[in-house]
Amino acid sequence: MDDATPLPTVNRQVLLAQRPHGPVAPECFEHAQTPLPPLQDGQALLRVLYVSLDPTIRGWMESDTYLPAIPIGDPIRSGGVAEVIASRNDAFAVGSRYFAMTNWQEYVVADADLMGSPLPPDLDPVEALGVYGTTGITAWAGMTQVADVQEGDTVLVSGAAGGTGSVAGQIARILGAGRVVGIAGTDAKCAWITGELGFDAAVNYRTEDIDARIGELCPDGVDVFFDNVGGDTLEAALNHLALGARVVLCGAISGYNDAEPAPGPRNLMQLVVQRARMEGFLVLDYLDRFPEAALQLAVWVAEGRLRHREEVVTGGIEVAPRAFDRLFTGENMGKLVVQVWPRD
Amino acid sequence: MDDATPLPTVNRQVLLAQRPHGPVAPECFEHAQTPLPPLQDGQALLRVLYVSLDPTIRGWMESDTYLPAIPIGDPIRSGGVAEVIASRNDAFAVGSRYFAMTNWQEYVVADADLMGSPLPPDLDPVEALGVYGTTGITAWAGMTQVADVQEGDTVLVSGAAGGTGSVAGQIARILGAGRVVGIAGTDAKCAWITGELGFDAAVNYRTEDIDARIGELCPDGVDVFFDNVGGDTLEAALNHLALGARVVLCGAISGYNDAEPAPGPRNLMQLVVQRARMEGFLVLDYLDRFPEAALQLAVWVAEGRLRHREEVVTGGIEVAPRAFDRLFTGENMGKLVVQVWPRD
Repeated sequence: MDDATPLPTVNRQVLLAQRPHGPVAPECFEHAQTPLPPLQDGQALLRVLYVSLDPTIRGWMESDTYLPAIPIGDPIRSGGVAEVIASRNDAFAVGSRYFAMTNWQEYVVADADLMGSPLPPDLDPVEALGVYGTTGITAWAGMTQVADVQEGDTVLVSGAAGGTGSVAGQIARILGAGRVVGIAGTDAKCAWITGELGFDAAVNYRTEDIDARIGELCPDGVDVFFDNVGGDTLEAALNHLALGARVVLCGAISGYNDAEPAPGPRNLMQLVVQRARMEGFLVLDYLDRFPEAALQLAVWVAEGRLRHREEVVTGGIEVAPRAFDRLFTGENMGKLVVQVWPRD
Repeated sequence: MDDATPLPTVNRQVLLAQRPHGPVAPECFEHAQTPLPPLQDGQALLRVLYVSLDPTIRGWMESDTYLPAIPIGDPIRSGGVAEVIASRNDAFAVGSRYFAMTNWQEYVVADADLMGSPLPPDLDPVEALGVYGTTGITAWAGMTQVADVQEGDTVLVSGAAGGTGSVAGQIARILGAGRVVGIAGTDAKCAWITGELGFDAAVNYRTEDIDARIGELCPDGVDVFFDNVGGDTLEAALNHLALGARVVLCGAISGYNDAEPAPGPRNLMQLVVQRARMEGFLVLDYLDRFPEAALQLAVWVAEGRLRHREEVVTGGIEVAPRAFDRLFTGENMGKLVVQVWPRD
């Protein structure tokens, strides 16, 4: 955008209208067109290219957790990639791109304190939100920093066709896992993770008896369970823990849309019987290692050892609420992002 | 017993008659008087002095867990202290005492392979089953090997007036905990742990709102939760975890008598939000460290830093089933043992 082009004066946003109680209803969102004031000295204007859709956003909409709840009336909090289109701050060069908390909107006005990090010019912004972003780095952190994968381990991953799970299973293999089994919700997903991603086996939790299948597919027990799902899936996996197993709690998407929290697994005593540990983690705790992690992931991709897939939904920021739903119905395969600009 | 005294020819035993389903009913036990055959070369005859009553026996009665289930018709499996009263094996000197799996019976015929370890002659056999036995060493293992207590930590212990919990809380203090809070089921127990054992505070879970009280008593959150109870107690504690908390699963006595396993905590996501870990352990994994642990415990006792209490039930091995019940009704304070000989 050169100096002759007038700057935008309206910012399309998706705001939090009400907190979800149960499934995220359309009424939770409000579509707004907010005036963009003229740029002040020291500010830069960024155009959002893509926003990242993550299950954890559901939690931010509902209540204070590891971050404060999104205030009612604020844009939905979200990571994204944005490009500087106008700058009255030497720190922000026009054309440079940032990974930042862009939120669900078309434009971000950045002060000196933009929470974000610059992207190399040639990095695909979709991959920057997927395999090289929090989604992939979550898999890296959980698998390399928490799971303690040992040579020959049997590693089970739930949500295995999601952005994080699909990468997590492959990292387990790279770290020496002897057997990698994924749990996913469609035959197409199961075929993808075993066919393209090299998982040894997959369980379709919608059509198969998950408990029995884990037992069959992991005859020596599960050494590492990387869980994105919680609920019945977690309970089934606990029944098959090997001695000294590590259960890495990444998320529990099966329960995020429950109006009231569902009961937990009945078999936590398996942690005692198998001397196992269950540990939760948040990728935010590894912010200082993001550069190292992203580089490691890129090297694995370059070596052909790590594959990834991103699904891009077009139509502008307005489609984000509908697209967000797909995370919970299990329609997405790999990482899900919304292309904000161009709109299609 | 000198050579002139005839050896006993009958062994009173308590056998497993049927597996419990729900609370342990009297019908689960059968009282037997089993003939004791004459001693063979290489054998020794031990008289059982005390047997240890432990909640985990309930699990052994029901099903295979970390040990195979007790076979129907076998004596109830149990640790105990026994003394050699006759020996045709030079490895067993008459008068020497052993900590061993004596089971619920009056006599043990030992072959060369008696599973047990000799006790120093002057060690009180009750203390050998309590603070210096698996009960105290369980507290040692959980607190020193699993909990990772840091200087200033807030440590919460459930079952805090039990044999293990009462020692665990004191070890936490010795390791530098800044605040030690116990959960117990009577005012007398609460008074004992705060008055004599030096806990900073106690919650009576039968009369107080446990969740609210933990919040009041642990305003900076719980860094270590040493759990003997499970169920609602575990759920309440999870609501108050501090960042990076460690939940040490020692047992879950609240659920041992359930006919069907009860649902687990609804709030396992607290492990993610607080980046906390929950880890189960078994004292059996520390068998090779028992001598070191018992010595450490003895030094703490000698220094006046660790207090312990054992309740001795008399009346012979026949009273073991009734006494065992007290573990689940919460009647015992400290370690519970049955004196087998002398009978009163």
